[in-house]
Amino acid sequence: MSSIPDQNIFPHATGKAAETVAKHQEPQELIFHAGWFCPFVQRTWITLEERSIPYQYKEVNPYKKEKHFLDINPKGLVPAIEYQGKALYESLILCEFLEDAYPSYKPNLLPSDPYTRAYVRIWFINKSIVPATMRLIQAQEADKQKAALEELLKGLATFSEKIKGPYFLGDEFSLVDVAVAPWIVRDYIIRENRGFTRDAAGETWKRYAERLETRESVLKTQSDKEHYAEIYGRYLRDEAQSEAAKAIRAGRAIP
Amino acid sequence: MSSIPDQNIFPHATGKAAETVAKHQEPQELIFHAGWFCPFVQRTWITLEERSIPYQYKEVNPYKKEKHFLDINPKGLVPAIEYQGKALYESLILCEFLEDAYPSYKPNLLPSDPYTRAYVRIWFINKSIVPATMRLIQAQEADKQKAALEELLKGLATFSEKIKGPYFLGDEFSLVDVAVAPWIVRDYIIRENRGFTRDAAGETWKRYAERLETRESVLKTQSDKEHYAEIYGRYLRDEAQSEAAKAIRAGRAIP
Repeated sequence: MSSIPDQNIFPHATGKAAETVAKHQEPQELIFHAGWFCPFVQRTWITLEERSIPYQYKEVNPYKKEKHFLDINPKGLVPAIEYQGKALYESLILCEFLEDAYPSYKPNLLPSDPYTRAYVRIWFINKSIVPATMRLIQAQEADKQKAALEELLKGLATFSEKIKGPYFLGDEFSLVDVAVAPWIVRDYIIRENRGFTRDAAGETWKRYAERLETRESVLKTQSDKEHYAEIYGRYLRDEAQSEAAKAIRAGRAIP
Repeated sequence: MSSIPDQNIFPHATGKAAETVAKHQEPQELIFHAGWFCPFVQRTWITLEERSIPYQYKEVNPYKKEKHFLDINPKGLVPAIEYQGKALYESLILCEFLEDAYPSYKPNLLPSDPYTRAYVRIWFINKSIVPATMRLIQAQEADKQKAALEELLKGLATFSEKIKGPYFLGDEFSLVDVAVAPWIVRDYIIRENRGFTRDAAGETWKRYAERLETRESVLKTQSDKEHYAEIYGRYLRDEAQSEAAKAIRAGRAIP
């Protein structure tokens, strides 16, 4: 038994995600340092798959970090991209990096029009949806769970008002969709444990969620449900030791 | 007396900032909705001034918002840019919008190299410096002030390790410098009231701070010190009702 329970995390992707990992073992200019279970990792992974950018996948257990990884990326956060020997991190910054560094790989997920680019950046941040989901999962007392659920539903309602359908911007799949998709495919955790329903979030959100969870790049980066359950059990008991979990517990912004 | 003390905020820029405002009253394609006292506003304002982008300055009292402003910008946050009848907000997103929409206005503050662009985005966020400064200002108990001061000094040390000098990237002034400058010019608030010293933050930080606070675009967007003191008194007593102040009080990310 370790004093840090997350150290015993399941060590690799399974299911469809494992097939995707197997296809990305060859050395490439771009190395993707990932954790198969992490929703922030999945954002960058979806982007790589959507745009068919060549990459080498490397699994990192963020609680048992290897020396090379820490040498290039001292904060030790995943996702990280190693590019020409240097590391970059922060999921959405990585998605934007992929636009800047691989402009000819289609489809681009950040539109070319300056106004729309800024609009996408405003809405991909998810300052309400992501922290509210994490607070809801980690909340132990009934009143705190209720408050977090209300906050999440309010955030989803505000977001839903802007969904043009089928995707956020309309027909064009963009980084707004990429940013929120990993939380949609994990929403069974709050459906099974915290009383969330997609119906309560409204018809627009429900249709949008169904559209995103069946998108090929999202399916290809998903592991088997049972292994997520093992990890999210720690979050549901508020025992998780990830940086994001600790930030939520301390009332801080997710690093 | 109003129940919301911030409603009685001093109504307009003074000093050098007032001269800058006076030069930007003519109608332009780009309207800059600003609050003279707000550090987030100053980021976008510095960018407009650095790059000589034509803009019309409009002062918004964020606690007494006008109908037109709320119509185009329902969240009511400043800074906001009105461009072709539509509003955008979020200080750093606005700075990036100005790069995208006015690429030929020099100097560009986001480098063209993809790796460096991502590196700038990682470091302009200031997830440690800005919230720690706000927590330090708003903290009322000695132990909380001590913890916030330690956190801020730690954040400044981490940031300082990356300063190449004279600016963050070296000779090139960039959005990393823009993002942090408004907190540097306001640091007398924590020097006079919370025991902060630039010496404690180290020689690299001290030199960097002195360099930034004397940059022309920073000086041109500064009002007289006495009026900031009036506003920051509310923050120092933890009475401020801005969205940022409320978020810090609630242990949330700054919206």
